[in-house]
Amino acid sequence: MYINQEQMRNFSNKCFVSLGMPKDEAEIITEVLLEADLREIHSHGFLRLPIYVERIQKGLIQNKASIKVEKDNDAIALLDGDYSAGQVVAYKAMEKSIEKAEQSGIGLVAVKNSNHFGISAYYANMATQKDKIGIVISNVAPLMPAIGGAEKIIGNNPIAIAAPSGDGNPIVLDMALSNTAFGKVLFAKENNKEIPKDWGVNSKGIPTTNPDEVINGGFLSPVGGPKGFGLAVMAEILTGVLASGPISKMIPSMYDVNQKQSISHFMLTIDIKQFISLDLYYAAIKQLVSYVKDSKKAEGTEEIYLPGEIEFLKEKSNKEQGVPMEEQTFLKLNELAKELNIDPLKV
Amino acid sequence: MYINQEQMRNFSNKCFVSLGMPKDEAEIITEVLLEADLREIHSHGFLRLPIYVERIQKGLIQNKASIKVEKDNDAIALLDGDYSAGQVVAYKAMEKSIEKAEQSGIGLVAVKNSNHFGISAYYANMATQKDKIGIVISNVAPLMPAIGGAEKIIGNNPIAIAAPSGDGNPIVLDMALSNTAFGKVLFAKENNKEIPKDWGVNSKGIPTTNPDEVINGGFLSPVGGPKGFGLAVMAEILTGVLASGPISKMIPSMYDVNQKQSISHFMLTIDIKQFISLDLYYAAIKQLVSYVKDSKKAEGTEEIYLPGEIEFLKEKSNKEQGVPMEEQTFLKLNELAKELNIDPLKV
Repeated sequence: MYINQEQMRNFSNKCFVSLGMPKDEAEIITEVLLEADLREIHSHGFLRLPIYVERIQKGLIQNKASIKVEKDNDAIALLDGDYSAGQVVAYKAMEKSIEKAEQSGIGLVAVKNSNHFGISAYYANMATQKDKIGIVISNVAPLMPAIGGAEKIIGNNPIAIAAPSGDGNPIVLDMALSNTAFGKVLFAKENNKEIPKDWGVNSKGIPTTNPDEVINGGFLSPVGGPKGFGLAVMAEILTGVLASGPISKMIPSMYDVNQKQSISHFMLTIDIKQFISLDLYYAAIKQLVSYVKDSKKAEGTEEIYLPGEIEFLKEKSNKEQGVPMEEQTFLKLNELAKELNIDPLKV
Repeated sequence: MYINQEQMRNFSNKCFVSLGMPKDEAEIITEVLLEADLREIHSHGFLRLPIYVERIQKGLIQNKASIKVEKDNDAIALLDGDYSAGQVVAYKAMEKSIEKAEQSGIGLVAVKNSNHFGISAYYANMATQKDKIGIVISNVAPLMPAIGGAEKIIGNNPIAIAAPSGDGNPIVLDMALSNTAFGKVLFAKENNKEIPKDWGVNSKGIPTTNPDEVINGGFLSPVGGPKGFGLAVMAEILTGVLASGPISKMIPSMYDVNQKQSISHFMLTIDIKQFISLDLYYAAIKQLVSYVKDSKKAEGTEEIYLPGEIEFLKEKSNKEQGVPMEEQTFLKLNELAKELNIDPLKV
């Protein structure tokens, strides 16, 4: 199912504006959600709109952003998001990080008391639009156990790194730290298939090939075992600890509508031209891209892709077709439309 | 086999000094090698001393460091290592990165024309000794193919992130980006065991469970597939591209003694106290450590470890016993002693 892009934009903006949100803030959230769905990262697209709306209605996310600057110098800042919408806080924080990089060669903005901000790549990409490298990390509610653990204590913390390519799309890594997405475990169960032993553990913390054991009381495992776990711990330190926000088990799920979430972000920008000339940089990137794309292919491989490239190809094609959407999401959005007194989406 | 620590220090220092290296530079290399062996990361310990010596003898690594500052402001710098020893260049670069962080809240030093620098964690830990967070990345000669590739095009680039804990050892992640170490593939072959399908591919780029196919013409695979590959590509951009050094296939192996190597590093330091008070920081770290260490254990697990903790426990125990060493390494070092006219090592 494909929804016209402009219709989708208007719909999403109206949802947030109907809750008293200023139009420019609604537009930021909408653009981040839209980009996720266009790139077919549906887990972070308009599927999340209803829960954002519910959290705003319950006062768990502020309908008007009120971001406070706690520390501010030439290269760094610490912001208090004051429970404003995650997308708005992250967007403003990344703008500040870019400004600081412009001034000092590097800029780091730490953020506390923000909310779920959608796809990390969106903010890392903001840096690439100014010929800069962006690195964005966030903590989230705990989802994975430690290595040898049987209890959720660390988030599937996303890390995005984006570098401009000078030639169309940036090179973008946007990864979470579990070995696989929960959706793939559900898919294996529906198809009565076993899962690889490193995808998850059962309720006792023992690796299992039975998807059902991961789904019922088990946990996803970190990618690469201690490597993914280690990255998740360091991500927690660079976000929640550095910004003095909540960490680990202190963070409730965004689907718990009785508690504020209080998420922390790490927004780093590097101003390339203060290290080397942009000509040199773009020539080197072109060379690197060629080494990767033109390397000898494995038997059966038709094309080798750079980080983020497949998502940009999907975005390009979906921009012509419209916003791809599951029927279930469509139906839920139209239930919401009724509740908010907004014109429903049409296919 | 265990070698007395002071004997090992003197031996290593004498090797480098006998080549005309200033004593303080020899000592830096020795300490980095020693720390690797004490933590039982033997692949980066004194096993590498003979190849460093050979490269210095051939003029591929300078016996006296001559590091040039190409760019320098309050928060960032670009250094040209001028083919000096990697450990010396990285040590000086990290000192500079720490100074800049002290001044600006964050410091980034990009380095080109350096050499293999041993364990990345050593330099990231330098930041933790000053109540700071350190992030160190290096590129290395290409070792892995792209996803769907059948040719080495990206290094098993190491990434280290270290955060002070305020209570003994820092929390340290030091990881390379392959799924497993080559040594583990060799070990499986010797024991006639199959390897998991995600450890490596054969010469045609196809995942294989036969260790022999990885060893003979095949390649190690990146950890987590596209995640590890993506991290390796971004690491290459943050090192070789940002410092305008060689990248990917331009970098020869350190065991190719006909060519200079020219390695690039990324040394980032974050000054915690410019974001939040050290009291707040260390209290949050203590809480995080407790969430992890005291979490519910999996059946059969006796203790849960933080990133780097196992290595520090090994270091502690080895500091009492001496430097652990394989007999083969011992014999090679004593062959080298003869060549350099130095007293041999004794067990």
